[in-house]
Amino acid sequence: MSEIRQDITTNEWVIIATERAKRPHDFVKPAKPLPPEFDPKCPFCPGNESMTPPEVLGYRDGGPPNSSNWWIRVIPNRFAALSPGKAGEEPKREVTNGLFRKMEGVGKHEVLIETPKHNLYFPYFTDKQSEEVLIALRERYLALRCEPRTQVVVIFKNHGDQAGTSLLHPHWQIVATPIVPQSLRRRTAVATRYYDDNGGCLYCDLIQAEFKAARRVIEDISKFFVIHPFASRSPFETWILPKQHSACFGSLDLDSAKELGKVLKRVLGKLFNLLGNPDYNIVIHTAPVKEEDEDYFHWHLRIIPRLSMMAGFEIGSGIFINTALPEETAEAMRAVKL
Amino acid sequence: MSEIRQDITTNEWVIIATERAKRPHDFVKPAKPLPPEFDPKCPFCPGNESMTPPEVLGYRDGGPPNSSNWWIRVIPNRFAALSPGKAGEEPKREVTNGLFRKMEGVGKHEVLIETPKHNLYFPYFTDKQSEEVLIALRERYLALRCEPRTQVVVIFKNHGDQAGTSLLHPHWQIVATPIVPQSLRRRTAVATRYYDDNGGCLYCDLIQAEFKAARRVIEDISKFFVIHPFASRSPFETWILPKQHSACFGSLDLDSAKELGKVLKRVLGKLFNLLGNPDYNIVIHTAPVKEEDEDYFHWHLRIIPRLSMMAGFEIGSGIFINTALPEETAEAMRAVKL
Repeated sequence: MSEIRQDITTNEWVIIATERAKRPHDFVKPAKPLPPEFDPKCPFCPGNESMTPPEVLGYRDGGPPNSSNWWIRVIPNRFAALSPGKAGEEPKREVTNGLFRKMEGVGKHEVLIETPKHNLYFPYFTDKQSEEVLIALRERYLALRCEPRTQVVVIFKNHGDQAGTSLLHPHWQIVATPIVPQSLRRRTAVATRYYDDNGGCLYCDLIQAEFKAARRVIEDISKFFVIHPFASRSPFETWILPKQHSACFGSLDLDSAKELGKVLKRVLGKLFNLLGNPDYNIVIHTAPVKEEDEDYFHWHLRIIPRLSMMAGFEIGSGIFINTALPEETAEAMRAVKL
Repeated sequence: MSEIRQDITTNEWVIIATERAKRPHDFVKPAKPLPPEFDPKCPFCPGNESMTPPEVLGYRDGGPPNSSNWWIRVIPNRFAALSPGKAGEEPKREVTNGLFRKMEGVGKHEVLIETPKHNLYFPYFTDKQSEEVLIALRERYLALRCEPRTQVVVIFKNHGDQAGTSLLHPHWQIVATPIVPQSLRRRTAVATRYYDDNGGCLYCDLIQAEFKAARRVIEDISKFFVIHPFASRSPFETWILPKQHSACFGSLDLDSAKELGKVLKRVLGKLFNLLGNPDYNIVIHTAPVKEEDEDYFHWHLRIIPRLSMMAGFEIGSGIFINTALPEETAEAMRAVKL
């Protein structure tokens, strides 16, 4: 019989198909051909800087902005979901018939290009590169949080077709939204309720409980704790939680960025080792900008390999069916030696 | 500039990329080869009845159950997400460390095979067949709602790879869950709040407001109202709403089933006409079994063509980016003459 498990951070239910669960190796994806190291048509490849809007950040050894000798580069997204709007003007809002509510899509949408190499994936970065990607993400977080209309900064990465990427060149995206998404409101509401009921942070307690349960732990290192969560919505879903309580990704210090870069590289390396080169998303969950100092939320990073399709049941009910046991996939992850 | 619109039924935000919106014809999918009319390995093809568990319902002209002369057939899902459990026994529940909550996955999971023909899609059904599919779905709804553990009956259809189907043969799935999904709790909470604030049904008022706005209406017929909703999460998302208020799909009467069968056939036919043979999900939203008689919820049916991938932004924020204008796609739908 399957199990219905509850994600304590959202109160959402997940069906874990324990009986017909696939073994970890059943999720291996067929190898995809590696693209070339340089693609002359790729706007993110060095030499093509003029194909993108002018950069907002570039890590390079000397040389002017938008020259080619960078190793990390951040640019406004040419196909931005949200755009800056007029300085000093509030976005127009409109309500029609009481039922149709809309506002102008003001905000920022940036792209962080992780590496000049078109085909170099995160697990193959140097430690230095992986660390600096996180430092650059933090730098942009701290810049965008200060924009007057920013309520939330959403940081994410799409890798592969099934993860919704249109450009192969390794990159992240950073979106500053003028609204707080309902899903984040719910997460903070759940965490606030827990805090009020228990006098402590839900995520800190979860780290303790997963440590005790042990079976879903992948890494327990100085500053971070890595698990396949109890109520994983999809096979090999991986959470990386900072051990030190903080609601806000912007609080990441240099030492932590170093460790996070390395552990992210290692965790993705293990996923590549077990699954081939899986399509995946990474999402950084962080508190709304105006709640950065709250005690109840706890920023963290989630990796979601895209190994199964969301179907009508998930769309209709919001309940995911996971065909892998997190206890088994965590064991498989621990067993990989890199 | 894009628009951020709010879905009044969930309070979720959607970004409508008005500026870089694609035109309706940009979503056309390349033609897929049509499978054969009969596949000897398909468990849903006639003659292969022994490859499935014994049927729970069969529409046929005489002959015993599980014989081959059916035109609609309902069977337990051999790979059920939930299973019956022991009669009269409550499902076991368990809470560990206060944070890990789970229960046995008891429930029912059935498959409704729409047609004996392996390659006959809904738009090509006879009126009679389309009507009887809905009648059979209602029949199973009414049976499953009476199971002692059923809280909600989730009815859905997956068509095509990108919609998560593994079996090509046209079918629906029906899942009776022992819990109320959080997403349904939220929908009913939003509708209850609206009811308490306004003294009427949110969905009835929405029908009126969309009728007035007119631009997103696709059909306005005797018993049903069809729209591309204001805050569509994906291109060509289509809602079919019964005009008569009822919280529960089980209330569908024969005349309404007839009209719904025909309008569903027509709407899917228009989608096929405009988009090729798109992958899509259909979901029937209906109240929890114990709230079937409430005044605030309003059952309806949603068609979600799977034309874009859910990426990191959607996963991280819950905000969907829709690259089509519902006003334009509705116009394109209206223009199709079938």
